[in-house]
Amino acid sequence: MTVSYRLSEIVAQLGGRVLGDGEVRISQIATLEIALPTQISFLTNSKYRTQLASTKAGAVILAEADADSTDLPRIVSDNPYAYFAKVSALLNPPPAIEPGVHPGAVIGAGASIDTTASVAATAVIGEGATIGAHCVIGAGCSIGENVVIGRHARLYPRVVVYHDCVIGDNLIAHSGAVIGADGFGFALDQGRWCKIPQIGRVVIGNDVEIGANTTIDRGALNDTVIEDGVKLDNQIQIAHNVRIGAHTVIAGCVGIAGSTSIGRYCRIGGSAGILGHLQIADHVEIVAFTLVGKSIREAGSYAGIFPFSRAEDWRKNSVHIRHLDELADRVKALERQLKALSAE
Amino acid sequence: MTVSYRLSEIVAQLGGRVLGDGEVRISQIATLEIALPTQISFLTNSKYRTQLASTKAGAVILAEADADSTDLPRIVSDNPYAYFAKVSALLNPPPAIEPGVHPGAVIGAGASIDTTASVAATAVIGEGATIGAHCVIGAGCSIGENVVIGRHARLYPRVVVYHDCVIGDNLIAHSGAVIGADGFGFALDQGRWCKIPQIGRVVIGNDVEIGANTTIDRGALNDTVIEDGVKLDNQIQIAHNVRIGAHTVIAGCVGIAGSTSIGRYCRIGGSAGILGHLQIADHVEIVAFTLVGKSIREAGSYAGIFPFSRAEDWRKNSVHIRHLDELADRVKALERQLKALSAE
Amino acid sequence: MTVSYRLSEIVAQLGGRVLGDGEVRISQIATLEIALPTQISFLTNSKYRTQLASTKAGAVILAEADADSTDLPRIVSDNPYAYFAKVSALLNPPPAIEPGVHPGAVIGAGASIDTTASVAATAVIGEGATIGAHCVIGAGCSIGENVVIGRHARLYPRVVVYHDCVIGDNLIAHSGAVIGADGFGFALDQGRWCKIPQIGRVVIGNDVEIGANTTIDRGALNDTVIEDGVKLDNQIQIAHNVRIGAHTVIAGCVGIAGSTSIGRYCRIGGSAGILGHLQIADHVEIVAFTLVGKSIREAGSYAGIFPFSRAEDWRKNSVHIRHLDELADRVKALERQLKALSAE
Repeated sequence: MTVSYRLSEIVAQLGGRVLGDGEVRISQIATLEIALPTQISFLTNSKYRTQLASTKAGAVILAEADADSTDLPRIVSDNPYAYFAKVSALLNPPPAIEPGVHPGAVIGAGASIDTTASVAATAVIGEGATIGAHCVIGAGCSIGENVVIGRHARLYPRVVVYHDCVIGDNLIAHSGAVIGADGFGFALDQGRWCKIPQIGRVVIGNDVEIGANTTIDRGALNDTVIEDGVKLDNQIQIAHNVRIGAHTVIAGCVGIAGSTSIGRYCRIGGSAGILGHLQIADHVEIVAFTLVGKSIREAGSYAGIFPFSRAEDWRKNSVHIRHLDELADRVKALERQLKALSAE
Repeated sequence: MTVSYRLSEIVAQLGGRVLGDGEVRISQIATLEIALPTQISFLTNSKYRTQLASTKAGAVILAEADADSTDLPRIVSDNPYAYFAKVSALLNPPPAIEPGVHPGAVIGAGASIDTTASVAATAVIGEGATIGAHCVIGAGCSIGENVVIGRHARLYPRVVVYHDCVIGDNLIAHSGAVIGADGFGFALDQGRWCKIPQIGRVVIGNDVEIGANTTIDRGALNDTVIEDGVKLDNQIQIAHNVRIGAHTVIAGCVGIAGSTSIGRYCRIGGSAGILGHLQIADHVEIVAFTLVGKSIREAGSYAGIFPFSRAEDWRKNSVHIRHLDELADRVKALERQLKALSAE
Repeated sequence: MTVSYRLSEIVAQLGGRVLGDGEVRISQIATLEIALPTQISFLTNSKYRTQLASTKAGAVILAEADADSTDLPRIVSDNPYAYFAKVSALLNPPPAIEPGVHPGAVIGAGASIDTTASVAATAVIGEGATIGAHCVIGAGCSIGENVVIGRHARLYPRVVVYHDCVIGDNLIAHSGAVIGADGFGFALDQGRWCKIPQIGRVVIGNDVEIGANTTIDRGALNDTVIEDGVKLDNQIQIAHNVRIGAHTVIAGCVGIAGSTSIGRYCRIGGSAGILGHLQIADHVEIVAFTLVGKSIREAGSYAGIFPFSRAEDWRKNSVHIRHLDELADRVKALERQLKALSAE
């Protein structure tokens, strides 16, 4: 059961304009290298123009500047990458939802599940939880007591949401994500760590995606907040009382320590770390693997990574890092001596 | 259903002394900024004294040194942060346990589950496992064959404990934690990796907390050991045959390689890494993001992180790291030449 | 129920030669330090020879060069470490499989499960999925629609495989592993992130092991590929469209960004990171914690880590890293001045 569209139908729906035969039917999207005549491809970077010459694709999406680079039927868009995303969404709709609660699901007393929602076998919905319209709750998910989930959420198998968390519309949460576990808070008392109850919640806006095995801890006293449109990759750790501003995207394996507040439209590279109690401005880009140890007040790109090299070169160079202070002192001494010598 | 306490009742139970009206009733704890008159707040850092002036809290916990900073009813403690933790625990007790095995749980032959314990639907308890008094085993947990879990453990949904592991009293394990998976051990044999069976266990003491999606591998031959009072944050990886000393706390995303032994009362910062077969002394602090590549024999604070900067500055500076050895040689040559010149 | 073998039986099965009494029976393997007379131990590193003198082991595995270091009954092998692995596998066979689908499992329409396979309670098998001979699907596993899993796979509890993924023979996947979640792909469109459907699969060869809580994302358009014999430790993140060459081993907490291709027989150290769209040659070793920011064309060992030190020394030295460019300029100026001075 595949869907297919004429180019003319696509532009009627998504905008842009067709050059060449608008009656061409396409049923899937693929890279220039492997696309078939029934498929549409795309050129989002001019350096792949040579692949355009040899592609077997039935049609292509490209930018105005590349409009004349091929004779294939094509759709011209001022944002071909977003256009590609939308065509792919058109051709690859999510599987239809079969509404209803599977008899193998376990539903707590007083839970409210919209009749258009789907709850899979082995999912467990806590007492007093609310599941909105058109939600899909996958196998093995655990939704805590009094959780509220908005409309059109898609929780893949084995997502856990702890009690009292609040989630907006259109959430996508991948398997193994854990939302609302206790933040890490202890007070030392006579040689023993005394647990600080984590009584805040996680509050998530609309249009958020959360990757596989990502963890977002509940607040200690106030809430942890993920604003609208935030996209989180896999294996990210977000500590208690963090706030992530709207439309910020965070790549895999990033760790964000407690009470840090990140602005809107930031881009955080993979495996980066951000210490606690910091403020990061809007539109900040953090390069992968960078540790951010103090607040960033201005938009811009920030980095702090150690350039890799052959291990033998690395050994030779890195030893001096432990003696930089001394090296700087020696240079200063040389400058002094040379000045004295020149003055003679 | 909220609990509430008079200040006089709190000090009767937790110590400290009341200044002002001991009959004030409080039912929750909150930060100075948002506390209501029915709530108690706390001052653990003198720099928040200005907030103390404007707080609407009904009472405050503070140190002797700050005792006169407010006219509010207050509790004076010599460790106000630990006191805050205890008051919060008093006001926010864990949900009551409903003893019994849910009919949707799956219990293996010969498993022994204390009658005061609670086992949720979709939990699976392996053959011969022992679950102690007052334990809570959440939905979707999988407890392997012959596992022994002590009293008062709280396993949130979807914790996995592999066969034969042994756990003390008062464990808290958050969702997605995996205890006892195989360590990573292979021997190269004629171009193929030959698996080394991991026949050790994970042995966990009393009063341990394990964060969401944290993994602790079983030993290769001997056991992996987590001593009493250890607190592990989310997404930590502990490899086979590691030993973590009592009361050590480890922040999120830390990786500890095989056979390393960490002392007591250490504090390991987030995303730090510790290589294998190392010894870390007691009372060692590792700064976040630091890689520890050799043993640490003395207590103290250790760091090794690359200070971040604007990406353009970083590029200019980092290029020299690859040439530090050469730079050091040039400085040495300058010193020699200058000495020769001065001697003329 | 323990198994035991005579040394003569072991060499008959695994090769090598016995020195001393071949009739000695051993039933377990252990380190030199703790082995009992009913156990065999091994010497794979000559620096443990002193332990050999005091071991209580009933027999020992060692290399030709160490053959005369003990009078104990012993097996001499040219690869004693691999021999140890094989003896341990002989003495510690995986638990027998009880074929059949537990009544508490949930099987989708049209799924094909080999009669020799075992599917545990609370496992969910999607429509049209194929589970090969002698597979073990643990409790709480979720196998997506149309997934194909070959023979002899062992999935520990709570592994998730998303729809359409293809897995070869002999897979071992540990708890919490997520195979085939969506890659992280979005296009910015008028201030909002537009999701790019991830329509590729994950394709996994034979003899692969995947650690606890490791995530492998499905491809955006083409597939993510894990070749034969790859061994992945815990908490690894593999992004969409990555290819991992045969027999490569990757330690815990490594992150590999999208579309990177890694060669065969590579060894990637723990917590290392590899940026996207890179090519890594065969037989490359990456030291733990290193960030690889560009392609590596030649076999060899590569590093890029910041050597740690006492925090106070680190502070003194690291401040100069932010001024390396200036320091290099000052050295250059000194060289120039000194040259001018010498020329006078």
